[in-house]
Amino acid sequence: MLQDEQSIRDMIALWHSATARGDVDTVLALMDENAVFLVAGQPPMRGRGSFERGLRGLLKTHRIESSSDIQEVEVSGPLAYCWSQLTVKVVTLADNSATTRQGSALSILHKQSDGRWRLVRDANMLAAA
Amino acid sequence: MLQDEQSIRDMIALWHSATARGDVDTVLALMDENAVFLVAGQPPMRGRGSFERGLRGLLKTHRIESSSDIQEVEVSGPLAYCWSQLTVKVVTLADNSATTRQGSALSILHKQSDGRWRLVRDANMLAAA
Repeated sequence: MLQDEQSIRDMIALWHSATARGDVDTVLALMDENAVFLVAGQPPMRGRGSFERGLRGLLKTHRIESSSDIQEVEVSGPLAYCWSQLTVKVVTLADNSATTRQGSALSILHKQSDGRWRLVRDANMLAAA
Repeated sequence: MLQDEQSIRDMIALWHSATARGDVDTVLALMDENAVFLVAGQPPMRGRGSFERGLRGLLKTHRIESSSDIQEVEVSGPLAYCWSQLTVKVVTLADNSATTRQGSALSILHKQSDGRWRLVRDANMLAAA
């Protein structure tokens, strides 16, 4: 169980570092093909392909600096959740102007048949900092 | 497992019906003492006592009509999550004016030692309808 929790913490750290360096393929490998992303004021965003289109589009003109302050990880068999406090800074490449959003995130993860944990559901409650 | 899923669906239905009739004690019995409620733009609200103060305050001047369109329930041992699309209508008792908010909710539940499922974490992404 402790090993699973550490794997999940490592996965989240990798998510942020890969995002920062624009390594979209690595980020995509951390989520299930049918992952669903939930935010306020928008319908659910369904699927890795939708996430990929959004991220690749954003990274054409911006870079992302993000971090998680993980509040807890709980594992039960092949199911886990992680509650974290997120900070996401989006920097415009053209002029280095930045906007920062902060807030809670609640994520559901599945342990796949290859033993790796992947994101399946993500509730994102970021708001202007 | 199917019985657990049905228990969780029944619990959510009871949450809405008890809220509508102002039966705060019944709602409180459906959550863990250390439940945490997450929304955008506010720090985490920690504990059943905080929830109780907010709900009892609101119900002095309003009634609540709410419903869940449950998208999925997944159970693994004593841990479960539920993703639903929520609609919450808050009606002012004085003049029957109402505001409606809709959006996703992602909830984490624990099976307690008495066999009942209770809410432990709740991510609420309601926005103006």
